[in-house]
Amino acid sequence: MTLFLRSTEPDFQQRFDALVQGRRDQPHDVQDAVRSMIAAVRERGDAALIEFTERFDHMNLAETGLAIAPEELEAAWNGLAPDLKAALQTAYERIEKHHRRQIPADDRYADAIGAELGHRWTPLDSVGLYVPGGKASYPSSVLMNAVPAKVAGVPRLVMVVPTPKGEVNPAVLAAAHLAGIREVYRIGGAQAVAALAYGTETIKPVVKIVGPGNAWVAEAKRQVFGVVGIDMIAGPSEVVAVADAKADPVWLAADLLAQAEHDEAAQSILITDSPALAEATAKAVDAQLAVMPRGVIAAKSWADHGAVLLVSDLAKEAPALVNALAPEHLELACDEAEAMLPAIRNAGAIFIGHFTPEAVGDYVGGSNHVLPTSRAARFSSGLGVLDYMKRTSLLKLSRESLALLAAPTMTLAEAEGLFGHRQSVAVRTNGSD
Amino acid sequence: MTLFLRSTEPDFQQRFDALVQGRRDQPHDVQDAVRSMIAAVRERGDAALIEFTERFDHMNLAETGLAIAPEELEAAWNGLAPDLKAALQTAYERIEKHHRRQIPADDRYADAIGAELGHRWTPLDSVGLYVPGGKASYPSSVLMNAVPAKVAGVPRLVMVVPTPKGEVNPAVLAAAHLAGIREVYRIGGAQAVAALAYGTETIKPVVKIVGPGNAWVAEAKRQVFGVVGIDMIAGPSEVVAVADAKADPVWLAADLLAQAEHDEAAQSILITDSPALAEATAKAVDAQLAVMPRGVIAAKSWADHGAVLLVSDLAKEAPALVNALAPEHLELACDEAEAMLPAIRNAGAIFIGHFTPEAVGDYVGGSNHVLPTSRAARFSSGLGVLDYMKRTSLLKLSRESLALLAAPTMTLAEAEGLFGHRQSVAVRTNGSD
Repeated sequence: MTLFLRSTEPDFQQRFDALVQGRRDQPHDVQDAVRSMIAAVRERGDAALIEFTERFDHMNLAETGLAIAPEELEAAWNGLAPDLKAALQTAYERIEKHHRRQIPADDRYADAIGAELGHRWTPLDSVGLYVPGGKASYPSSVLMNAVPAKVAGVPRLVMVVPTPKGEVNPAVLAAAHLAGIREVYRIGGAQAVAALAYGTETIKPVVKIVGPGNAWVAEAKRQVFGVVGIDMIAGPSEVVAVADAKADPVWLAADLLAQAEHDEAAQSILITDSPALAEATAKAVDAQLAVMPRGVIAAKSWADHGAVLLVSDLAKEAPALVNALAPEHLELACDEAEAMLPAIRNAGAIFIGHFTPEAVGDYVGGSNHVLPTSRAARFSSGLGVLDYMKRTSLLKLSRESLALLAAPTMTLAEAEGLFGHRQSVAVRTNGSD
Repeated sequence: MTLFLRSTEPDFQQRFDALVQGRRDQPHDVQDAVRSMIAAVRERGDAALIEFTERFDHMNLAETGLAIAPEELEAAWNGLAPDLKAALQTAYERIEKHHRRQIPADDRYADAIGAELGHRWTPLDSVGLYVPGGKASYPSSVLMNAVPAKVAGVPRLVMVVPTPKGEVNPAVLAAAHLAGIREVYRIGGAQAVAALAYGTETIKPVVKIVGPGNAWVAEAKRQVFGVVGIDMIAGPSEVVAVADAKADPVWLAADLLAQAEHDEAAQSILITDSPALAEATAKAVDAQLAVMPRGVIAAKSWADHGAVLLVSDLAKEAPALVNALAPEHLELACDEAEAMLPAIRNAGAIFIGHFTPEAVGDYVGGSNHVLPTSRAARFSSGLGVLDYMKRTSLLKLSRESLALLAAPTMTLAEAEGLFGHRQSVAVRTNGSD
């Protein structure tokens, strides 16, 4: 069942490239349907939300109202089992503390000619957080999306969560309460994204929409991008584990399967220089698959997308393979982990050493679990405080510093044929030019 | 010709909202055409580039070759007039110095329980810079896009620029030489974006594409987003000037028209509490329009999208109007500029005081002139060093710190029904769980 690729085999590069390039998510052709749903919400506001929610979620919002009251969130929090409450509290505090270190500094300075430059960071005015309904409705995701926004200083945080047939995950409402969210609506799908982007009678629009969702939600986010900001469109989850001969095959197998259980399209890859570890891990995977609750999903993910890459020299070969895969999660389960770190450029998050299972990072490590998938770690970063702020640049000239910059400005404006640009400097320095 | 809106009039809010919401760019329906061009480049590589370039640019790339040699760039630099050379040099140095201050710091620390956290910033492996051909081909844009990439440490910078009928702006090639770009191809349009994203026989793919372009280029960037990173899709340019009675109407008129000359869809807005200044500025606009080289374009922009907003109390009313407009450029031509600054949240760049015409920021101020348009300053920032880097988060636990985080991790994993996640912690802490 396990796919083994050996770097010494002549077709290794070709088969590795196929692994790297392989598209795992199914393309969904929902563009036109989403377009007309967004148009309906723009035209008919709450009425359209009520209709779509009736049709897709079998819920009568005209009866329940759109909003979930803060009291309901608080009641959900109060109703949680004490150990879950404590765990969420630990997660909240660790995420909050870690993200505080990401608050960027403003800058203002005068340069050699007396020109003042700088920049100023300000929080976004408002953010909409999409939370999926049903089984993929995770309280940890509420914290991971909401806490950095709170740390950034976003004054208005709005959550939307569909409640199909009235069903809602109390842990999600409790997490919203814990994160300080007070404005929540029981809507989902493309219609919820449209409401957040354009507003309705009940819902004021936001300036950015974040959070995971199905193909309809992803397409709706794509379509409203520009009207509002959006976060990355998340693909299926991934882990790459780099392990030496000393790594524990049972631990590694558990880590590979923790990723695989998310989704049949998830991908787990082991890179090792130990044939014995490779064999033992593959066996441990099979043994654990047989007993794990989400074994059917994990088995399909492992069979379709999993792989063991066997290399001759871990320190020399692993970093290049990792950089090509650019995985969302990277585990370095090897003694030489720290030495390998500088050679690794493309990864969403790195979990260092034998005692750092990726799952801790999903919940209580403190760093964010919203990370770039599908090789996007080559050009983008995990969610953080900066995603909830924007930078305004500042320039201030005096009569004297303007005089010193006038000639090159006017020369360049003239070279670009923009005489109006030239003139705006000339009138200040030469009188009428 | 000038549109005056007075904040004391009963329909002010309604007319102001129309100004804020008005779409200025024309929608272009080029989706399908762009999709098939991208597919052609993916299938047939260089051959497709040669065909499209023959058709759209009337150039035979099979004869000239795709690349513009570094020697050609150097020759262009050597051939520039001395004052233009000096101006570009000044611009380069000031942009470089300012952007150096944006290099982000790495972080690594151990927290109270001995867990190590942190993040590391690394430059992107490669970036493609799109430069339009013809009249909108600006050397300043080459510097503004390339210098932050160089400062970030991006090792491979690729430029594409169409050369219709062989025509190319020597100042653009010279700016590329100055910025240290050595890999340049004479291609443009959607085909150039496809080549950068997917690669051809001659062109290796990049991981991010930046730079302005027409509707075809913008749509191509949208379609390849995800395969590669992209910068913002730029809309028409904008300026808002906030001026008090002491501002000079001739200077203000020149600033408003410097924006308007870019494009008939550009927007220039004056906000003032001085009826006399409002009148005088409108008159000065008409006078300058009559004599400026790009007067036809500027006149249409001013007539269709320009406005003078007359308020009763500048300090109280202007910041709210500015925040709603979220302009790309904001000039604070008033004595109380510094005092007004904290109340302004949404602006791409702020030019402070009477002696800071926006045009200086376009060229030699040092800050970046690639800024969010069409109200995107509500949720995004101007181009900077961070756009050419990505952040990888780090987590490292010891046996002891893992033990302390095991319980909350396992509780949350269980609450989310992810027993594989739970297991990856359990095997490390409880033996077989």
